[in-house]
Amino acid sequence: MSAARGDLLRALRTKLRQSMPITEALGLRVVDREGTGVVLSAPLAPNINHKGTAFAGSLNAAATLAGWGTIWLVLREHGVRSHVVIQDSKVHYFRPVRGDFTARCKGPSAAAVERLVAAVQKKGRGRLELDVVISDDGGDAVRFHGRYVALTEGGAAGPRHGTRLSPG
Amino acid sequence: MSAARGDLLRALRTKLRQSMPITEALGLRVVDREGTGVVLSAPLAPNINHKGTAFAGSLNAAATLAGWGTIWLVLREHGVRSHVVIQDSKVHYFRPVRGDFTARCKGPSAAAVERLVAAVQKKGRGRLELDVVISDDGGDAVRFHGRYVALTEGGAAGPRHGTRLSPG
Repeated sequence: MSAARGDLLRALRTKLRQSMPITEALGLRVVDREGTGVVLSAPLAPNINHKGTAFAGSLNAAATLAGWGTIWLVLREHGVRSHVVIQDSKVHYFRPVRGDFTARCKGPSAAAVERLVAAVQKKGRGRLELDVVISDDGGDAVRFHGRYVALTEGGAAGPRHGTRLSPG
Repeated sequence: MSAARGDLLRALRTKLRQSMPITEALGLRVVDREGTGVVLSAPLAPNINHKGTAFAGSLNAAATLAGWGTIWLVLREHGVRSHVVIQDSKVHYFRPVRGDFTARCKGPSAAAVERLVAAVQKKGRGRLELDVVISDDGGDAVRFHGRYVALTEGGAAGPRHGTRLSPG
């Protein structure tokens, strides 16, 4: 891992720890990046449900954050400081998660990143759709698709954004 | 509130507290039912994100559980003991949640409940789609639609269910 790459991952870890206390309760950890996609992990224990498998809400939270972290890092790599929020998502839980799990975001293509960065720089706002897969030792269990919006610091405060967008 | 109604809500609270520890960290509380739909509440503080609003993952978890609790209670009212799991969901975060929030599940119609109960009793398995809205003091902020499956205790252990279904 290059120094810059390690610095970015540490910055993301600090961001989550300082700004999103629930990630601690969920046991979410930023593990690595695969290409441009963030990989998170979480233990089963704090996220267990009535069936002894992982609670769907915890799985969704992990997927949402894997996508969020991916865009946050990609923008920082391009020198763009912006807010990232999720607008909508869909998720399919096709197999129970029976142990500790990982959420792997498929990194966006170079072209998609270029479009995002250009849109944020030009219009103060850009969109990106991302896929995340959650797996345990038994293989893939959850597929997630999220639509995210990146907003420049000034843009986020405007009423247009403030009334229409959601927390990430 | 009738005694039976109060007993059911208490049973749901006990279930969540005993079986899903993360609900404690999220601060989720079973408040009431409106018709057949469960109403949950949660404080902003433990669910806050980098923008000082509620984390999307927490909102999704609250919505997922409001739907889950609704089916769980409806089935108990009809004397059906079964597992309830969520299969898929979609969610639209159209406004940031800036304070404590509630997740209100729109209770299923009597006809939908009748079909669900009949399917579970006859085939050991039934489906139900539910809508949940999350609001804060400023009004509605999140719309959620989830597809749930109810499985009789025996049915849930079978390979067909065990490999295809998800944690609730």
